[in-house]
Amino acid sequence: MRKGKAVVVCVIASTLTSTIPNISLAGEMAAATLFTPALDVEYVQYGKPQSIDSIPTTPSGIPTPAVITRAALQLSNAPFIVVNSGSYVEPKLPALTLPSRRVGGRIDKEEALPRGTSKRLFSEAKTAGKTFSSLSDVVLIGESMPGGTTTALSILKGLGMGDYSSVSSSSNVNPIDIKKSVVEAALKRAEGMDDPFEINDVLGDPLHISIAGIAIGALSGGSHVILAGGTQMLAALALMRASGEEFDEEKVSIATTKWVFDDKGEKMGKLVGSLAPGASLVYADLSFSDSPFEGLKAYDEGFVKEGVGAGGTSVLALLKGRSVEDLKRSIYIEYERLMKMR
Amino acid sequence: MRKGKAVVVCVIASTLTSTIPNISLAGEMAAATLFTPALDVEYVQYGKPQSIDSIPTTPSGIPTPAVITRAALQLSNAPFIVVNSGSYVEPKLPALTLPSRRVGGRIDKEEALPRGTSKRLFSEAKTAGKTFSSLSDVVLIGESMPGGTTTALSILKGLGMGDYSSVSSSSNVNPIDIKKSVVEAALKRAEGMDDPFEINDVLGDPLHISIAGIAIGALSGGSHVILAGGTQMLAALALMRASGEEFDEEKVSIATTKWVFDDKGEKMGKLVGSLAPGASLVYADLSFSDSPFEGLKAYDEGFVKEGVGAGGTSVLALLKGRSVEDLKRSIYIEYERLMKMR
Repeated sequence: MRKGKAVVVCVIASTLTSTIPNISLAGEMAAATLFTPALDVEYVQYGKPQSIDSIPTTPSGIPTPAVITRAALQLSNAPFIVVNSGSYVEPKLPALTLPSRRVGGRIDKEEALPRGTSKRLFSEAKTAGKTFSSLSDVVLIGESMPGGTTTALSILKGLGMGDYSSVSSSSNVNPIDIKKSVVEAALKRAEGMDDPFEINDVLGDPLHISIAGIAIGALSGGSHVILAGGTQMLAALALMRASGEEFDEEKVSIATTKWVFDDKGEKMGKLVGSLAPGASLVYADLSFSDSPFEGLKAYDEGFVKEGVGAGGTSVLALLKGRSVEDLKRSIYIEYERLMKMR
Repeated sequence: MRKGKAVVVCVIASTLTSTIPNISLAGEMAAATLFTPALDVEYVQYGKPQSIDSIPTTPSGIPTPAVITRAALQLSNAPFIVVNSGSYVEPKLPALTLPSRRVGGRIDKEEALPRGTSKRLFSEAKTAGKTFSSLSDVVLIGESMPGGTTTALSILKGLGMGDYSSVSSSSNVNPIDIKKSVVEAALKRAEGMDDPFEINDVLGDPLHISIAGIAIGALSGGSHVILAGGTQMLAALALMRASGEEFDEEKVSIATTKWVFDDKGEKMGKLVGSLAPGASLVYADLSFSDSPFEGLKAYDEGFVKEGVGAGGTSVLALLKGRSVEDLKRSIYIEYERLMKMR
C-alpha cells in the first residue's frame, strides 16, 4: 500500500433523513444539508464550492472535514474521483454517475428507495470499483452524506448487527434519542425480511450500498480497499458481508480519525472483528489541540470528527511518507485560506 | 506508449443534427440515432445493450464499429471509461458526467449550444483529462455521436480549416450535398466571430469541444493522447489548437482505421500537418475482406468505416503485442456472439 498507486474516491448522496430536525450538524438549516455533499466535493476538487458560494460549516462555524481531506490529498498527490449515488444537488464537476442514483427517503416515515434500487446500485458500483482497480493498487473510498450515521445505524440494526451505541456523531452530544426513534420506526417496516438489498431499500440509503459495491468490485480486481470513514463504514462493511460476495478481508482497512477512534474505537474493533476478522482498523494520529484556530480546536472537543474521507486521506498521506507535522501545517494553511474566502 | 498503462475513454453526446433525414447511417430511423451513443457504450461495457434490447446497426444490418472496439479492448485489457458530454439517453452504466452536458441543437436551423456552454464543457473536460493522466500514461479518446462528421465539418470550416472534402462518412456514398447545405446554414450564423468557444456554441456540438478538453487536460498531466477516430478527430485537434492552450504535439496521435485512411488519409495528413506538425497519424492495418460475414465485409466496401474508437483501440491492441490475426479472430468471435443475440 505504501508503494502502490492510490485513487481517492468520494461517494456522495443525500437522504431526506438529514432533514429531520436536530439529527445532523452538516448544515445550518435542515434543508441546507441537501447541498452539503455537492459543496464538499466541489471544495475538495477546486478549493472553492461552485454550486453556491458557501463553505459547509456547522451552526457554530466549524468547517467541514473536507478541509483535512483537501490538505491531505495535496500531500499524497492522489487523484480524486467523485461518485454520485444520489446527491440532491448535482455537483458542478465531472463525477462518475450511477444510473440508479436517487435521493434516499426519510426513513422514519417512508421507504429509503424503490424496491430493486439497492441491488442495481450495488451492481453499478461494482462495475465502477472494477474500473478503479484496473487503474490503481489502492482504492480509498470516502463519503459525504448528512444523516449518514443515522441510516448507517439503521442498516447495521436491520442486518442484525450492532446496537444503539455503535455509531458516532458529528455533534459533541450525540442526539442518540432522536436517532433511536428514527431507526426503530424504520426497523418496523423491515420486520421479517432477510434479503440485504431489500432491507436496504426499506431502511437504508443510496450511499452505503454503493460504497459496498465499489469495495467489492475493487477487491475482485485485486486492489487494496481503504474504507475512509468512521462508524458509517461499518454499515458498508456489513453490506459487503451480507451481499454474499467473497472478498479478501486482508485487503480491507477501515481508516478513520483519532476523534472517532477515541469515541468508538473499541466498539468498532469488535464489530470489524465479527464482520471481517481479517480486516484492519487504523486511524490517523492527528489532533488540533495546539491549533491557533478555534474552528479546528472544536474537532478535539468532539465536533464533526470525520467525513469526506478525512481520516483515510490523512492515513494515506502518512503512508506516502509525510509526517503528522507536515499534515498539520498543510491543514492550517488551507484553513486560513478558507477563512479569508468567507 | 507500448509499455505504459493505458485508459480508454469514450466520449458520448447527441446532436439533433443527426435527425436531419439521410444525414447519418447510425440508426435505422432518424430518431433512433439519439439512442446510438448509449447503446454503443453499454454494449462495449457489458457485451449487450441495456437501455433497449437492440444492437446499433445500419439500415442494411451492418453492425456498429463498437464490435471492433469491444474485441480490441479485450485483447489490450485496458479499462474503459465513458464520459457523457450530452447524450440524449443517459447510458445505463457508471459514466463520468460533465455538469454542462447538453444535447446539441440541429445546426441547420438553431445554435448548437447556449452561449458559454462550450467554454464550460472544455474546462470540465480538462479537469477530467487531468484525472485520467494521473491514472495512466496513455489516454485514448474515442467517441460515439451520430451526425458527428457533419458537425466536425462545421467546426473545421468555422475555424477556417479544411474544405467540404475533409470529412469521411459512415456511408459508402458520402451524402456531401446534404452536409454542405447544413454546414453553410450554420456558418452563416457565425460570420464575423473569432472566439473558438463561441463559434462552437453557434455551429458545433457538445462532443468535439469535450474531446479537446480531455486531451488538453491529459497532455498537461504528461500523458500521451491517442485521438481514436477518423476525420472527426481533426475537429477536436482544431479546437485544441484554437483554444490557445499550449500542448506537446509529439505526444498526440490520431489513430484510425484503414478504411478511413484509404478514404481520407492524404487529406488528413495535410490537415494534421497544418494544425500540429509534431502530431502523428496512424491506422490499424485491419481488413475484413476475407471475412465469412457479410456484415463485416461491408466495412471493406466503405460502410461505417470508424467509430467508438474502433481504429484507435485496434492500434492499442497491436501496440500491446497482439497480432492482426489475433485481433481479427477476436472480432469474428465477437461478431458471431452478437448475431446470435439478435
